[in-house]
Amino acid sequence: MDLSKYIFSMPMQVRDYEVDAEGIVNNAEYLHYMEHTRHEFCRKAGLTFRQMRERGIDPVATRIDICYKHPLRLSDEMICCLNIGRQGAQFVFKQDIYRADGVLASTGTVKIACLENGRLSRGEALAKAFEPYLS
Amino acid sequence: MDLSKYIFSMPMQVRDYEVDAEGIVNNAEYLHYMEHTRHEFCRKAGLTFRQMRERGIDPVATRIDICYKHPLRLSDEMICCLNIGRQGAQFVFKQDIYRADGVLASTGTVKIACLENGRLSRGEALAKAFEPYLS
Amino acid sequence: MDLSKYIFSMPMQVRDYEVDAEGIVNNAEYLHYMEHTRHEFCRKAGLTFRQMRERGIDPVATRIDICYKHPLRLSDEMICCLNIGRQGAQFVFKQDIYRADGVLASTGTVKIACLENGRLSRGEALAKAFEPYLS
Amino acid sequence: MDLSKYIFSMPMQVRDYEVDAEGIVNNAEYLHYMEHTRHEFCRKAGLTFRQMRERGIDPVATRIDICYKHPLRLSDEMICCLNIGRQGAQFVFKQDIYRADGVLASTGTVKIACLENGRLSRGEALAKAFEPYLS
Repeated sequence: MDLSKYIFSMPMQVRDYEVDAEGIVNNAEYLHYMEHTRHEFCRKAGLTFRQMRERGIDPVATRIDICYKHPLRLSDEMICCLNIGRQGAQFVFKQDIYRADGVLASTGTVKIACLENGRLSRGEALAKAFEPYLS
Repeated sequence: MDLSKYIFSMPMQVRDYEVDAEGIVNNAEYLHYMEHTRHEFCRKAGLTFRQMRERGIDPVATRIDICYKHPLRLSDEMICCLNIGRQGAQFVFKQDIYRADGVLASTGTVKIACLENGRLSRGEALAKAFEPYLS
Repeated sequence: MDLSKYIFSMPMQVRDYEVDAEGIVNNAEYLHYMEHTRHEFCRKAGLTFRQMRERGIDPVATRIDICYKHPLRLSDEMICCLNIGRQGAQFVFKQDIYRADGVLASTGTVKIACLENGRLSRGEALAKAFEPYLS
Repeated sequence: MDLSKYIFSMPMQVRDYEVDAEGIVNNAEYLHYMEHTRHEFCRKAGLTFRQMRERGIDPVATRIDICYKHPLRLSDEMICCLNIGRQGAQFVFKQDIYRADGVLASTGTVKIACLENGRLSRGEALAKAFEPYLS
C-alpha cells in the first residue's frame, strides 16, 4: 500500500450493520465508501457537497466499474484512496480501498457528470476547485 | 422496453428513503435493486438465497460495471430485468432497469463467483439450478 | 393476524441485503419498512410523498418507539399494517409488522410533525387527506 | 453538551448518502449511528462485535425509543454519547447525539437482550465486560 500514488487518502471503518448475512460487507456499501471518500476529497479541495448543493451544483455518477478483490469484514479498518482525471466534461475518479493491513480490498473507476441548476454542464466550477489535483 | 429479451423480469418500486439529497435514487441503491432481482430470479430457479446459505453456498460479486442513464426519483416504479451467462467458473448477469414508462434507467454487468463452505468452487450447484436459463 | 383492525396493510418482502451479520433484519431496516408503509398509505389517501415535496410539505418523525418481537430473516415475507390518529398538530401512526405466517414481528408508534416551507405547521393539508382514516 | 455525564462518547460524521430527499438525515440512520456507537463502546470495553459473533454471542435490540430533536444535515459532524444500565437480563443504553455545535439532535433508549448460541441468556459474558461502566 503506497499512499504516495494517490492525491487523497483517508481512513474509514466498517460499521457492523454494513456487513450482510454472508459475513462480508455488502457490495453496495463499497459505493457508499467511495462516495464518502469523494465528498471528503471535495471538502479538502475547498468545496463541500453541501456548498455544491447550495450553489445548484449536482455531481452525478454516470458509470461505476468496481472490482471486489478481498472482502471487508466486521470491525475492519480500511484506507480509501483516490486519484482524479478528466474525460471531456466528466471527472474520472480512480478509487482504491485497502484493508488496514495493506491488502487491496477493491478498486473502482467512477465517472461523474456535473449538473448545474438541473442541466448538464461543463463542470467548470468543480474543475477549478479540483485543478491542483487533476492528473 | 421489450421484456421478451430477458429470461427474468420483475416490477420493483423506489422506496422514498433510497432517494438522496439530490432528489434522485443514490447510486449504491441500484446495486441493491440488482441484487434483489438476482435473488428473486434464484427463487424462481428453485433455490432461494436462504437455501444457498443453509447449504454453505455463498455467491459473491467479483465485478460490477454499471451505467446510470436516467435517474430514478421519488415514488418511481421500475422493471428490473436480467439475463445470465457463464464465463469460466463465474456467472455473468446482464441487468437492466427500466422506469415504468419504458425509459432505460440503468444497465449493469455483474460477475458472481461461488464459494462453497468458504472456498472458491466451480459453482456446479448453482449452474445446475440455472441451466434452463443460461444463454 | 386480524387485518380488519387496521385501516391500511400491505405485503412487503425482506430484501436479503437488509439482513445483517447476525442473520436477522437489522433493527434500522424496520424503520425503513414503516416509512415505506406510511408513504404507500399516503399514496392510497391521494397524496404521494413526491406531491408533498412539490407542495413544500415535509412530514418529519419526531419520535419513534419500536418493539422487536420476533426477528425477520432472509427471504421472509411480511404484512405491514397501520392505523393513524392525531395528537395536537402531530400525527400518530401505530404500525405493526407481521411475518407472513401471522407471527407479530414488531410493533411501533411513530409521531410525525409537518413542516410547510420549512416551518412547523398544523398539518392541515395532510389532515384533510387523512380525514377518512383518522381514528 | 457536557460529555462528563457519559461513560462513552465519540465523534462521528454524517455521510452525505444518509441524507434523504428532505435534506435531512433519514430517521433510520440514527439507529445506525447508535448501533455503531454501542459497538465502538464494546470495543473500548474489550470485546468487539466480531469477537462476540465468534463466541456465539448475539446482542439483539428488543426495544428502541428515539426522539428526534434537531435534524442532522449534509456534512454535519456530531458527538455520539452513551450510558449503560441493566434491567433484569437486558442492557439499557441511553444514547444521545449532539451536533458538533452542542445542539442536541436526538436522544434514545435502546434495550438489548443477549442470545448465546441462539438462546436467550442472562448476558453474563457482556455484563462482565461492561461492569466498570454500568450505572
